[in-house]
Amino acid sequence: MANIFGNKWSFTSFGESHGAAIGGVLDGVPAGMRVDIDLIRGELSRRSEGVKELRSEGVSPRAKNEPDEVEWLSGVLDGVTLGTPIAFIIRNKDARPEDYEYLKHTYRVGHADKVYEQKYGIRDWRGGGRASARETAARVVAGCIAKQELAAKGVRIDAELIQVGAETDPAKFAEVIAGYQREGDSIGGIIECRINGLPVGTGEPIFDKLQAHLAYAIMSINACKGFEYGAGFGGVTQPGSAINTLSGGISGGISDGTDIIFRCVFKPTPSTPKAGVKGRHDACVAVRAVPVVEAMTALSLVQFL
Amino acid sequence: MANIFGNKWSFTSFGESHGAAIGGVLDGVPAGMRVDIDLIRGELSRRSEGVKELRSEGVSPRAKNEPDEVEWLSGVLDGVTLGTPIAFIIRNKDARPEDYEYLKHTYRVGHADKVYEQKYGIRDWRGGGRASARETAARVVAGCIAKQELAAKGVRIDAELIQVGAETDPAKFAEVIAGYQREGDSIGGIIECRINGLPVGTGEPIFDKLQAHLAYAIMSINACKGFEYGAGFGGVTQPGSAINTLSGGISGGISDGTDIIFRCVFKPTPSTPKAGVKGRHDACVAVRAVPVVEAMTALSLVQFL
Amino acid sequence: MANIFGNKWSFTSFGESHGAAIGGVLDGVPAGMRVDIDLIRGELSRRSEGVKELRSEGVSPRAKNEPDEVEWLSGVLDGVTLGTPIAFIIRNKDARPEDYEYLKHTYRVGHADKVYEQKYGIRDWRGGGRASARETAARVVAGCIAKQELAAKGVRIDAELIQVGAETDPAKFAEVIAGYQREGDSIGGIIECRINGLPVGTGEPIFDKLQAHLAYAIMSINACKGFEYGAGFGGVTQPGSAINTLSGGISGGISDGTDIIFRCVFKPTPSTPKAGVKGRHDACVAVRAVPVVEAMTALSLVQFL
Amino acid sequence: MANIFGNKWSFTSFGESHGAAIGGVLDGVPAGMRVDIDLIRGELSRRSEGVKELRSEGVSPRAKNEPDEVEWLSGVLDGVTLGTPIAFIIRNKDARPEDYEYLKHTYRVGHADKVYEQKYGIRDWRGGGRASARETAARVVAGCIAKQELAAKGVRIDAELIQVGAETDPAKFAEVIAGYQREGDSIGGIIECRINGLPVGTGEPIFDKLQAHLAYAIMSINACKGFEYGAGFGGVTQPGSAINTLSGGISGGISDGTDIIFRCVFKPTPSTPKAGVKGRHDACVAVRAVPVVEAMTALSLVQFL
Repeated sequence: MANIFGNKWSFTSFGESHGAAIGGVLDGVPAGMRVDIDLIRGELSRRSEGVKELRSEGVSPRAKNEPDEVEWLSGVLDGVTLGTPIAFIIRNKDARPEDYEYLKHTYRVGHADKVYEQKYGIRDWRGGGRASARETAARVVAGCIAKQELAAKGVRIDAELIQVGAETDPAKFAEVIAGYQREGDSIGGIIECRINGLPVGTGEPIFDKLQAHLAYAIMSINACKGFEYGAGFGGVTQPGSAINTLSGGISGGISDGTDIIFRCVFKPTPSTPKAGVKGRHDACVAVRAVPVVEAMTALSLVQFL
Repeated sequence: MANIFGNKWSFTSFGESHGAAIGGVLDGVPAGMRVDIDLIRGELSRRSEGVKELRSEGVSPRAKNEPDEVEWLSGVLDGVTLGTPIAFIIRNKDARPEDYEYLKHTYRVGHADKVYEQKYGIRDWRGGGRASARETAARVVAGCIAKQELAAKGVRIDAELIQVGAETDPAKFAEVIAGYQREGDSIGGIIECRINGLPVGTGEPIFDKLQAHLAYAIMSINACKGFEYGAGFGGVTQPGSAINTLSGGISGGISDGTDIIFRCVFKPTPSTPKAGVKGRHDACVAVRAVPVVEAMTALSLVQFL
Repeated sequence: MANIFGNKWSFTSFGESHGAAIGGVLDGVPAGMRVDIDLIRGELSRRSEGVKELRSEGVSPRAKNEPDEVEWLSGVLDGVTLGTPIAFIIRNKDARPEDYEYLKHTYRVGHADKVYEQKYGIRDWRGGGRASARETAARVVAGCIAKQELAAKGVRIDAELIQVGAETDPAKFAEVIAGYQREGDSIGGIIECRINGLPVGTGEPIFDKLQAHLAYAIMSINACKGFEYGAGFGGVTQPGSAINTLSGGISGGISDGTDIIFRCVFKPTPSTPKAGVKGRHDACVAVRAVPVVEAMTALSLVQFL
Repeated sequence: MANIFGNKWSFTSFGESHGAAIGGVLDGVPAGMRVDIDLIRGELSRRSEGVKELRSEGVSPRAKNEPDEVEWLSGVLDGVTLGTPIAFIIRNKDARPEDYEYLKHTYRVGHADKVYEQKYGIRDWRGGGRASARETAARVVAGCIAKQELAAKGVRIDAELIQVGAETDPAKFAEVIAGYQREGDSIGGIIECRINGLPVGTGEPIFDKLQAHLAYAIMSINACKGFEYGAGFGGVTQPGSAINTLSGGISGGISDGTDIIFRCVFKPTPSTPKAGVKGRHDACVAVRAVPVVEAMTALSLVQFL
């Protein structure tokens, strides 16, 4: 089930980046919940324009052209959920397939173009089709509904960019990114996410460990190359006698009531002017991945509630 | 489905570490496949004694007491699979609950004892119950059958320990570990796994990306704190123009025909003499995790074939 | 996963009968398949107007008002499937919630109105919401794509009405139904479905028997009260020595290469003028269920291919 | 997942009828539940010997040879569930493959022997392998645990044989069956099952309707040829104005708080002395199916609680 996430709150994602629309269906949401449309709109802006502090021409060039308007098709009546599937679409107003015509017979380096064609024998060459990061907009909508349910239960999810290239001082991120943008190059970033208020006992031992599900959810985001929690990879140098305080909030696959902290790394986009790829480019995709990380975390956690 | 892994080759794991037996059921294995019992026996030794080069009193003290004998209950007739569920058990010959009697009313630091009791209201105090690493023996048996199927299709999986503490020279691993063993302490390790021969097109875009499934499988192993592939976390400092050769064998969630390389990190065990925990201890659990990493990789990959 | 059917070809259904739209997402359809839009349009007519022979004012009064127009959102490019989720919607042009205003504070006898409100604490009173048979239009669209895939593999599915009330002569069905229509009453019907060309070996032993999956698929259709195959209930009076020829095409849960024949029964609609329910009514819902039975059969069978 | 039933309480079934053992793993059972071993033993007797009233040489010839002893492997400590997978086996003490040696190169008429070989290319010829009704013993054990959980919540499940051949007077069933037994022939039967005390709101609309799940569970039992609830097939002759009282306890896929009543039909076994099949035979398999129907009903219902 390549395009369905979760089996309690099942999220079905659909849509090519330059087709008629992208969208999703969220099944399993309880009845009687008020959907905060403004919150969703705000999260979509965070995704398309990047987090507020980093908004600039340099960081997110395509923002102006892509105001993501959600059209609600079902599952909500007078702003309240009905307990039935919530279906929504975001029209691709900015669909300009002609921009991508040149890709019809070529593959972009570092992109999924080639494997898609090898796998399916056919390919939507219009801007990456399903492989485009545009698909994550649907995740943000669904994740935001999940986040509201979690918030009502006292669970908070906060992700933030903590590293860009070698830089770890947030005050300098915009500057570093702008530098790569100017050079037609790109750079990676690390996002840290904190989950606060999750009830003790969330997660299952053995295969459905909380960290395994979170890793699955986060690693399914485009360009993500790694996931770690608690002491993570850095903990390898510390002896057991010193490391025990760094559980990361999970023990034996089950939340222990303390904050859960995980980190994930996003590679630099390979399609840059420097690499000979025409058109728009994000110098640091990690910037816009922050709300997507929160959305996938929320979608992962609601499966356990 | 906390104790079931996969939906093509579905592996159901069961058994408390100090109950009558642990075991598993592997459903979905095609009929007519010859099961290599010797290979499975060898893999179980790797798990219980550690990889050959590191076998010593220091590394794996409990090996002598735990010869894991597999009893095959169904699914195999005259050494050949029937296409029906393969059920097997490993009796807990060494079940000595009295060793753990003192745990009936205490929780071990850094262990899942406490969250289990909070979650279930009841707990098998006999050596960790389901949370014990002993459960991974069943994974090794099932994973080994998966590995045979993959090998028949030309897919090889090879994991090895590449770092112990700060040490990256394999020649010195035994020495480093023995040091921690003597001090009643423990240390973490990093395992690298290479998948060779996987057909182009394995994996699905969006949620069922190959790396997401591998991360889920690997992060479900006890003591694993992180997963990365390709350039991983280290790639964050490299610009897009330099990093593109480090795809890690996966593009857009789909294998591209080159070797897939991932790494995972295992924390040091918290229950050490130094931490006041009596009884057996592994100075570096990563040593014995190597065949488990291969097993879970194999179980993950067969879902896609 | 109340609104998702199948795990190979996963069909997600959504939409309230009097909301903005109903629709569906079909995930798992292979790339490169040409979608026959005219066939789908024809099947939707069969569903909304009833099979051709029975089309009349008496049989299906709402047909004229409900031309179901499918809007394709994703998964199809130039009429050919992309291997990505196929999303489609059917707008509820005829949404007249005011017709149902009177139901806001009342429950229709024999309808799901009351249990919905008890279960969800909230209810879309506009014409039955999700419980309306209108939802089956989405099934017909998805099922029709499945049917095309099956046809390409030589599998034919043909359902027909074989009984209306006590009448078993098809020539008289229209007359019988018109009689109940005039009296403001309704009557049940039996549909027989024949599957031809299914490869030997389709279906799984134990739980995923072919007949179990077909029964699940068919019993999920509104108003269906029973499913039988082969000799069915009637076979109870025949001794084993006589009955063996009536296998119904399935042995031990697995197709044996002969035609599979099953029957299902549809109750009369309870909301009739005679029962005091205002508005439109179908004197025999089995008439319009014929293409739905074919659609669900197709969706069930594609899971096994 | 051919051998796994359910996704909340997941039951994995395994074992060939004449291999080392049959058994199962029940995952998802809450911790702290006392398992009534005697009840399970009683249900296994009902399955192997038939319901008490019908126990006789004629009805169930193999009972004496098959005392089903359950060996509990995990998930239960001091008679109380741990919240971990409950694994159990029943050894095939009576395994006499030599009785079936003659089947190695022949197929029994009306049995799954042939399709199994066509499907798998290999076949356990020893008494039907997985296709044997012996597999249902594992269902009875798991179902009995489910039944205990349901009973604790006030839900009762009672199935009984209501028809044998044309006979509907229970006082005469033993006599009718003995007649077929003497002639080396067999006869079908109808079982009715009543579910009492199920909370309003159980079941889901659309695909996971309660009746669809029950039909799936029941139709997965060997020899079952049909399922109906409420008015069922017989209701086809009654007009809507008369039939509304026969809802069968389910409305729109959701329980309405009244008793749920369904019926299922079992064909006569085809392997009889009259048909030239040597060895043991059951003149009416429906007799022994009664506890299996209850078990599968219970396993189906616990998925919704």
